[in-house]
Amino acid sequence: MTTTLWHNARLATLDPSHGADGWGLVEDGALLTVGDRITWVGPNRGLPAHARPAHGVDLGGLLVTPGLVDCHTHLVYGGHRAAEAEMRLNGASYEAIARAGGGIRSTVAATRAASEDQLFASAARRLRALMAEGVTTLEIKSGYGLSLEAEARCLRVARQLGSDRRVDVRTTFLGAHALPPEFEGRPDDYITAVCEWLPALHAQGLVDAVDAFCENIGFTPAQTRRVFEAARALGLPVKLHAEQLSDQGGAALAASYGALSCDHLEHLSSEGIAAMRAAGTVAVLLPGAFYMLREIKLPPIAALREAGVPMAVSTDHNPGTSPGLSLLLAAHMACSFFRLTPLEAVRGITVQAARALGLHDRGLLAAGQRADFVAWDLDHPNELTYWFGHNPCRRVVVAGLERP
Amino acid sequence: MTTTLWHNARLATLDPSHGADGWGLVEDGALLTVGDRITWVGPNRGLPAHARPAHGVDLGGLLVTPGLVDCHTHLVYGGHRAAEAEMRLNGASYEAIARAGGGIRSTVAATRAASEDQLFASAARRLRALMAEGVTTLEIKSGYGLSLEAEARCLRVARQLGSDRRVDVRTTFLGAHALPPEFEGRPDDYITAVCEWLPALHAQGLVDAVDAFCENIGFTPAQTRRVFEAARALGLPVKLHAEQLSDQGGAALAASYGALSCDHLEHLSSEGIAAMRAAGTVAVLLPGAFYMLREIKLPPIAALREAGVPMAVSTDHNPGTSPGLSLLLAAHMACSFFRLTPLEAVRGITVQAARALGLHDRGLLAAGQRADFVAWDLDHPNELTYWFGHNPCRRVVVAGLERP
Ligand SMILES: [Zn+2]
Ligand SMILES: [Zn+2]
Repeated sequence: MTTTLWHNARLATLDPSHGADGWGLVEDGALLTVGDRITWVGPNRGLPAHARPAHGVDLGGLLVTPGLVDCHTHLVYGGHRAAEAEMRLNGASYEAIARAGGGIRSTVAATRAASEDQLFASAARRLRALMAEGVTTLEIKSGYGLSLEAEARCLRVARQLGSDRRVDVRTTFLGAHALPPEFEGRPDDYITAVCEWLPALHAQGLVDAVDAFCENIGFTPAQTRRVFEAARALGLPVKLHAEQLSDQGGAALAASYGALSCDHLEHLSSEGIAAMRAAGTVAVLLPGAFYMLREIKLPPIAALREAGVPMAVSTDHNPGTSPGLSLLLAAHMACSFFRLTPLEAVRGITVQAARALGLHDRGLLAAGQRADFVAWDLDHPNELTYWFGHNPCRRVVVAGLERP
Repeated sequence: MTTTLWHNARLATLDPSHGADGWGLVEDGALLTVGDRITWVGPNRGLPAHARPAHGVDLGGLLVTPGLVDCHTHLVYGGHRAAEAEMRLNGASYEAIARAGGGIRSTVAATRAASEDQLFASAARRLRALMAEGVTTLEIKSGYGLSLEAEARCLRVARQLGSDRRVDVRTTFLGAHALPPEFEGRPDDYITAVCEWLPALHAQGLVDAVDAFCENIGFTPAQTRRVFEAARALGLPVKLHAEQLSDQGGAALAASYGALSCDHLEHLSSEGIAAMRAAGTVAVLLPGAFYMLREIKLPPIAALREAGVPMAVSTDHNPGTSPGLSLLLAAHMACSFFRLTPLEAVRGITVQAARALGLHDRGLLAAGQRADFVAWDLDHPNELTYWFGHNPCRRVVVAGLERP
């Protein structure tokens, strides 16, 4: 195991033990890593001479933060929907777009028609964009295959995307994303199928968590509960697309299953907040979809803050409602649209996003954490949510190794 | 002069002679350039053998569009305002921020305190971000110096930024941007000074156009008129920050001086539209500021479209209300917030933005135009306003030369 001293950096540890303002800034800071772990963090002069390893890396005075965590993506799919977006902006009605084969069903058809190699190649291109901005962990959901074989294919692609260890991928089975055409009019039968597929997918090691889309245009709370029961039977954690377009009581339902996160939440009720708080469920905010759908109703940020519910921020990358490929921009939009503070937004794409994935070993620069960090061409971490539309990321270290 | 055949590309010429849909797509297309000009555009097989030069560049099947034009930026300034933005998101009042030295006056103070080298270095970093996305022409305004010496310094930096010919810079004198502290309570005296500075700056070759901020928190129409008269006396074209926060009748005033463009325009009246139409003035839309200020009132897009007023889109990069560094994101936001069609938005950052700068030699892929073009890792130009937050630019050619 290599021991390395990463020095000559301004650290934004996000560790409150390094200062009361929450950024945890350490000037002229250094990180000691052994293998894939951080073993020491502090001012460079604070490390005694006998503890200094032979191998050192000069970070050139850059600002260093924890690696970014994108905790909600639908990154693997066939095709894209640019032509449909153009039709819509040219004034086409939803009916006309549906007649032209648009909507989520077009993505399902394209995903089913794509080979595993094609799915891998297109997702890898998108992943490169996210990684170039300092993403070191991301979640990828299935949900455009909607058959056992196609869902398995997408989840295998997700696993493969993380196989070179330059990024850590967590997979989520989202069979209950939409109703496939062959189950038209039979949503309960489809949920039965989803619950049957889950053990098979889990047996192949393809499932880290289970998700559903609980909405008046998605699945009911009763159907969602059946999916959660199937997950519980396998000991798998759950999460939920909840209260995006209406208040279905999904957040409270998910919290009752100890959900890792509830995501979207524009229509979240105070009961939902109380249930999430009690369960320790993370609120995942998705301003990219809010932006694309030109939503007006804001998630109840002040109430979540007041209740102490942790808030994460994610891209929600998907080909329909959020074709965004910048987690920094999602954080910027969380400030601009939702009025998160810069610190909340930066914690939202690091430590709180890790918590939304059930991961407690990353998201801070602290001894014992995974050695995932990013060096930025910035002076202060509040610039991460000030400038927008460019990429100040200069160096990325994943599990103790610098990405080429 | 080098003659080059750029081939194996899908061309989005934006030239209606290549198809009725406006994109002007040419499959398996080629461009012939001689020196800094395009001399021929068409399908590769359409160029006779005797016309094919020895020197060819294979563009690898990429999508090629005209170079991007950012027609409204405030790129040169000292410091930045990330800490102020953080204070505001943390709930600080405008008074508290003003007491802490915030607002435009902080940028004026930092700009005055910065050396020419410092101003160049910080602006060059920002310019690199814009250029990396395919910007080949951009406008840079002064307006944070607010003294003859400091305005001249900023304009010299703007000129210098374009001196290596990797990007074409057009300068705009915006002395009438804000009232400097030494003229507190004496705006008319300040306008007198601005009108006196203009000939001196023009004599140094620093001014391509003249702009003002006509607004209830800026300068009055009468003061704006005085600036325009000073410009007219020198034969300089004018443009205006008009109707951003209120309807001052600025657009009609600017149009009466044959303005190249009126910019912002959220509160533009039908009289303003009619005057712009008659004068051939371009409407420059600035969705980045709309986004940052969380505006609700939309510019009258349908009426502008109906009237046939050309619409451009720009970043409005500035440290207060639009610290964005992506022209593609501005185009995306123009679609999402303002409902421009993808074609309107792409024309808005190419041909119409060139017109907003009075430039008729760029913005299309056509014989006679400057050889400014961009090769993208995309299949169709409608993807330029579909994906957001990443950079699909792969190669940039400026005045016939590929940027390294
Ligand atoms: Zn989602
Ligand atoms: Zn401006």
